[in-house]
Amino acid sequence: MTTLLALYRRPDGGTDAELEFERRYAAEHLPLVAGTPGLISTRVQRVSEALGAETDLVIVTAMEFADRASLDAGLASDAMRAAGRSLREIAPGLATLLVLEDAPDLGV
Amino acid sequence: MTTLLALYRRPDGGTDAELEFERRYAAEHLPLVAGTPGLISTRVQRVSEALGAETDLVIVTAMEFADRASLDAGLASDAMRAAGRSLREIAPGLATLLVLEDAPDLGV
Repeated sequence: MTTLLALYRRPDGGTDAELEFERRYAAEHLPLVAGTPGLISTRVQRVSEALGAETDLVIVTAMEFADRASLDAGLASDAMRAAGRSLREIAPGLATLLVLEDAPDLGV
Repeated sequence: MTTLLALYRRPDGGTDAELEFERRYAAEHLPLVAGTPGLISTRVQRVSEALGAETDLVIVTAMEFADRASLDAGLASDAMRAAGRSLREIAPGLATLLVLEDAPDLGV
């Protein structure tokens, strides 16, 4: 499995800005992501704290694909391109997008 | 569900240091984590790239618990305390530990 992990930092502007980001993320961005070909599942989680540290991260979303080729096809799709445009509008500069590959040689 | 998400940065010292970190993470740290009461599952993934950016993250591990109370009990256990000690030895200052809560109100 290949995961596209999106880490979102807190927007400037206090609680109002954070709620507005959440509202548009759910109402505008995620429905576009949902149309991505090859997307197996999407899990959206809020960051409640960082243990022993401060964090500016507020939301972490994991999008699962069968493999890297499926992710690449998904990223090139109209749905994901539209999702990318919406993200640049509602959360400019706030997202880090990591590509993760299962590591069974390290796993338990 | 409550997730303990561990983000590991690349150790200084080049490829040798990274391989040694991976080896000790798998051989020493993860077996301790596995003994944590209430731990439902552990998923270890390598960071293969950050889209459109550089990243110093190399491994992301998701540990799942039923809820925050189960996570807190797990964190207080002998197993997790030993795992924490091993982490401070093999990856000092390299880990960010996030507590994530499912956000069905935001989900798709």
